[in-house]
Amino acid sequence: MSIFSYQLQAQCSHTKARAGVFHTPHGPVHTPRFMPVGTLANVKTVTPAQLKDCNAEMVLANTYHLHLQPGEDLVAEAGGLHKFMAWDGPILTDSGGFQVFSLSEMRTVTDQGATFRSPRDGRIIEMSPERSIEIQTHLGADVIMAFDECPPYPASREAVGVATERTYRWLRRCMEAHDRPDQALFGIVQGGTYLDLRQRAAQALAELDLPGYAIGGVSVGEPPALIEKIVQATAPLLPAHKPRYLMGVGTYKEMAQAIAAGIDLFDCVIPTRLARHGAALTKGDRWNLKNARFRRDLTPLDADCPCYTCQTFSRAYLCHLLHAKELLAYTLLSLHNITELIRFTETIREAILQDRFAEAFAQWLT
Amino acid sequence: MSIFSYQLQAQCSHTKARAGVFHTPHGPVHTPRFMPVGTLANVKTVTPAQLKDCNAEMVLANTYHLHLQPGEDLVAEAGGLHKFMAWDGPILTDSGGFQVFSLSEMRTVTDQGATFRSPRDGRIIEMSPERSIEIQTHLGADVIMAFDECPPYPASREAVGVATERTYRWLRRCMEAHDRPDQALFGIVQGGTYLDLRQRAAQALAELDLPGYAIGGVSVGEPPALIEKIVQATAPLLPAHKPRYLMGVGTYKEMAQAIAAGIDLFDCVIPTRLARHGAALTKGDRWNLKNARFRRDLTPLDADCPCYTCQTFSRAYLCHLLHAKELLAYTLLSLHNITELIRFTETIREAILQDRFAEAFAQWLT
Repeated sequence: MSIFSYQLQAQCSHTKARAGVFHTPHGPVHTPRFMPVGTLANVKTVTPAQLKDCNAEMVLANTYHLHLQPGEDLVAEAGGLHKFMAWDGPILTDSGGFQVFSLSEMRTVTDQGATFRSPRDGRIIEMSPERSIEIQTHLGADVIMAFDECPPYPASREAVGVATERTYRWLRRCMEAHDRPDQALFGIVQGGTYLDLRQRAAQALAELDLPGYAIGGVSVGEPPALIEKIVQATAPLLPAHKPRYLMGVGTYKEMAQAIAAGIDLFDCVIPTRLARHGAALTKGDRWNLKNARFRRDLTPLDADCPCYTCQTFSRAYLCHLLHAKELLAYTLLSLHNITELIRFTETIREAILQDRFAEAFAQWLT
Repeated sequence: MSIFSYQLQAQCSHTKARAGVFHTPHGPVHTPRFMPVGTLANVKTVTPAQLKDCNAEMVLANTYHLHLQPGEDLVAEAGGLHKFMAWDGPILTDSGGFQVFSLSEMRTVTDQGATFRSPRDGRIIEMSPERSIEIQTHLGADVIMAFDECPPYPASREAVGVATERTYRWLRRCMEAHDRPDQALFGIVQGGTYLDLRQRAAQALAELDLPGYAIGGVSVGEPPALIEKIVQATAPLLPAHKPRYLMGVGTYKEMAQAIAAGIDLFDCVIPTRLARHGAALTKGDRWNLKNARFRRDLTPLDADCPCYTCQTFSRAYLCHLLHAKELLAYTLLSLHNITELIRFTETIREAILQDRFAEAFAQWLT
């Protein structure tokens, strides 16, 4: 599995923050790093060529959604996700666990797996650890995720305990089913907001010597401060020489704090979703570009940002496109927002390499 | 006005088709040529960088729409349309005449001009030859169009006669109001489907020695065969050493036939509008990419097309994006459709330069 080696490059002296490189068959991922989300084999409104310009490395796609549409068989026939969506960098697919538990109706869950009704066409779909791995094998991402049970928030300690133990048994079955050496299987730590359940799960997973680990089941409605607590309790228990991925997290503050606790990878739909609402992530803040104060503002969105949008257009132009309901606005804001969050993690990475992260990002760490 | 010289490069021996170069302050336009439409200071779903890759030269924008939103003052403050929309190639603005007569409610028209209620916010707007030129002066396009009265189809000979004469008087007022030497004012031939009215208007306009001429008021609902008749009756009466622009036309067949009659420039919203309906213009045909036959078709949309979409993605991928209602589909299809229509006119241009247009495009000319 040396094909998926993680190389630790620097460790912060005041926090647990670390910089490293995670090697995949489709190139390196420099950590810490934000990963854009391409749920349905495309990052919404952004071409792969534009995504490269945003400095994206690893990109996500979604097993549940791609299974429903267009189906993993077609993707396999196309030569896998990289060819299908024309992204030649690293790709990660999540297992579908989160979507089965958050989106599906008519769901029944047993130890065998989950059965649910497709929201697309009403057909009954069975998802299990084996099935998830089979689908992900067909999709062909560099990193595939174990099928997990993601409890909602709030949930009783007992319910979370059952889900966490099931997640562990399912992981073992995923490992059994997994047989493509060019795909790295990451395990997912569940445990809800119960820190002892989280810690027990992390310890059990750490013993399995997987090529990478994720913390899942956060950002499901719990107070943000709890996310930090969960990460602080869990991340240090995961192997130091493996990448650590905090699933579904992507605000400035959450990322900075998670990095300080030792997290390497992030994904979030925020950059493209905010773009579709006319919002820009800029200098740690969130701006509504439809706001009247931008109507005649001929300065760039962020003069310091290297993205195409900031280098080319004014705030007034973006404001105009949004008021005119022009779809181009969503592309331009997505380009900026994705660049912004990747650049935020790149800047943190630089700071870690120079051992000045704790000072330079102090505003985010309290 | 030599800044706007039109240089005739070749004249077909079997038809009236011609190849030339029209020089503008923002670069040359090689004719015949299709011009993409950027109504609201953007070509829908396409960035200026992508538009360059489509080989676009002159791009349209719309005086009526830009006056309503964001207003010509802001565009002027931004340094003009080129800077505002970040298109450094030639730009043409239409006068708003067509929109005043096709989109507005509560319209009253006198010799002075038109008064109508803004569909955006209900305010009363007055548009006149002087006002249209003033707005276009602020917008700052390379080519500006005279304010004209565009009669609907069908319309009585009497009504069209009145509109055509008014259009001439308005053109004289536009010439009077026009004072930016870096903007070329084109006159518009009206006359509906009455060929003698068209011819009389063309002759009157030709005497005014304008830097370019347009045929307007076609593609408003009349049978396509009538468009060809109108163009054939009108184009030869316009000065040979000036560019001729057929407004609102852009199907393969209409363009080929109009080129054979001596037209140089075209604009049409077809490429982006069809894209938003999931349709591709390919090899002279129109394909609905949502069609089931494309679901598993892993070949490029058009293997011979140099556009980003055809060079990068399969029909199955485009079909998938459309079924998933992903906005990226509209961008990718727009890139292809714009490239396709520009390339169609470029191929015709090559054929004219080699004097083989009539043979090579015979299928379109009958």
